Amino acid sequence: MLAQPPDRTEIAGAAGRIKPFIHRTPVLASATFNRMLQAELFFKSENFQKAGAFKSRGAVNVVFSLSRAEAAKGVATHSSGNHAQALARAASLRGIPAFIVMPSNSPKVKIEAVKQYGGRITFCEPTLKAREETLKTVIEQTKALEVHPYNNYSIIAGQATAAKELLEQAGEPDLILCPVGGGGLLSGTALSAAFFSNKTEVIACEPSGADDAMRSFRAGKIIPSVNPKTIADGLLTSLGERNFPIIRKYVKDIVTVSEEGIVRAMQLLFERMKIVVEPSAAVPFAALLEGKISAENRRIGIILSGGNVDLKNLPF
Amino acid sequence: MLAQPPDRTEIAGAAGRIKPFIHRTPVLASATFNRMLQAELFFKSENFQKAGAFKSRGAVNVVFSLSRAEAAKGVATHSSGNHAQALARAASLRGIPAFIVMPSNSPKVKIEAVKQYGGRITFCEPTLKAREETLKTVIEQTKALEVHPYNNYSIIAGQATAAKELLEQAGEPDLILCPVGGGGLLSGTALSAAFFSNKTEVIACEPSGADDAMRSFRAGKIIPSVNPKTIADGLLTSLGERNFPIIRKYVKDIVTVSEEGIVRAMQLLFERMKIVVEPSAAVPFAALLEGKISAENRRIGIILSGGNVDLKNLPF
Repeated sequence: MLAQPPDRTEIAGAAGRIKPFIHRTPVLASATFNRMLQAELFFKSENFQKAGAFKSRGAVNVVFSLSRAEAAKGVATHSSGNHAQALARAASLRGIPAFIVMPSNSPKVKIEAVKQYGGRITFCEPTLKAREETLKTVIEQTKALEVHPYNNYSIIAGQATAAKELLEQAGEPDLILCPVGGGGLLSGTALSAAFFSNKTEVIACEPSGADDAMRSFRAGKIIPSVNPKTIADGLLTSLGERNFPIIRKYVKDIVTVSEEGIVRAMQLLFERMKIVVEPSAAVPFAALLEGKISAENRRIGIILSGGNVDLKNLPF
Repeated sequence: MLAQPPDRTEIAGAAGRIKPFIHRTPVLASATFNRMLQAELFFKSENFQKAGAFKSRGAVNVVFSLSRAEAAKGVATHSSGNHAQALARAASLRGIPAFIVMPSNSPKVKIEAVKQYGGRITFCEPTLKAREETLKTVIEQTKALEVHPYNNYSIIAGQATAAKELLEQAGEPDLILCPVGGGGLLSGTALSAAFFSNKTEVIACEPSGADDAMRSFRAGKIIPSVNPKTIADGLLTSLGERNFPIIRKYVKDIVTVSEEGIVRAMQLLFERMKIVVEPSAAVPFAALLEGKISAENRRIGIILSGGNVDLKNLPF
């Protein structure tokens, strides 16, 4: 795994490495949305990605970066969501075990998906402490390699490939928007924009109920997330120490959106674009709808991060 | 409007005529579904079509086929669903009025969409008799031209363009599946398969609770739908007299599916393919899942007819 932030060549290498195992997801457009916002929007649809989210990129990149010896004992992580599925899938593609620690309150649809990809689940209490301790025990028993969902340079290189593709598919937009939780997607996106475009800026979007990234960005140091509360369950985590310096250096700004805005954006994406997205994926579009980012006459790429949502509990 | 069934040239002409106003919708695939059915499936995603359904094709074809004199007074129809939206949209593109008679129990989302496209709605009781009488009154008052949702050769030529595109996009599959209600999409699909492929067969799929097309097909004469009951609200209508002879001549078979099968197919399309489809669109996939059509080792095109569904009342 990479020991320092990926450079241009390493991101290009990740793109080549993961290519056989992931989708080059489509970029969708909507005349209605363009008219609404007087802008030209490009939706990079990672909800159509393998295992339903961009996380497949980083997970495949890590798993296929490992030497045979490193890979032999399998990989391990704690995750309540998409990283768990993605790592389980990547491991099964390489034929190694994936040990997944999941909080007992994880959405059923995500637990089922991890099982389906052959992940070996250990449940724990839904606290960060319990997750970390349980993972430690699992790793002691199995000697598996820990793959952190975002605080990992090889994960960052993998996630960066989504924006790299978007730049290729949509020309170079003026702006790329992406959601921020732990910062894996955001740091990768910012690196790709810096390396593969001459003009594309990156703005991150975050729920106001989990605004640690925005506050960290303003303060110039990581401010951990305390009791975050948002429907965007993929964005509850605090920024990683490997992600934050990249974000500080390459991200233009971080804006926040309301819960109502997220639900409205999500509903519009279902109703008008006819696609299934999870709440986290709707956060950047919500920022446009709420006028948090000026859109008029701009070409704007939006990373729709995933589509793994419990359809029996839609918020609208 | 055409006075007889469209020939090869007329369908190609319709494709050219409507091209500026409709989407060439994508053909989606799913490795999971292919593995499940041991087949190669191609989903022609008309849920992404303008106004959310294939009906935009026929409506645009009719409206832009009219002479200026014919078009001047506007167009009129009765429809509880997608044809209403599609005709309202097509008329607004040409700058003529659309008079839409809708049953008072139409889904709210469909009423809103017709309004949004500038359609002038007259509500009536939810019976075929009330719909026809109300439409007659509207036409007497406005002198608008009636555009029947399916029993119309220019509509058939327009709907035929979906299968024509699918044949171009997916090579020539062994089989195309499409849902059948009044028979507009089915008769068009069957004509395109006959004209533009050397080998593609067409099988229609119908809810067992609205199996008039299957019974008509077996009996060799139109048997009207009596008290049909199905969640697939786009498929309640009886076959049109202009559609039926085409269906008899060119369609290989008609199979029926259960309500549970439709709901399961719809849920799988949401959960796995991450797309929003209406129940009618899920009927052909349900036929595959229920084993009503042998899929193994075949290349099968499926027309996903539309995505206009009330997301507040999903059946799963």
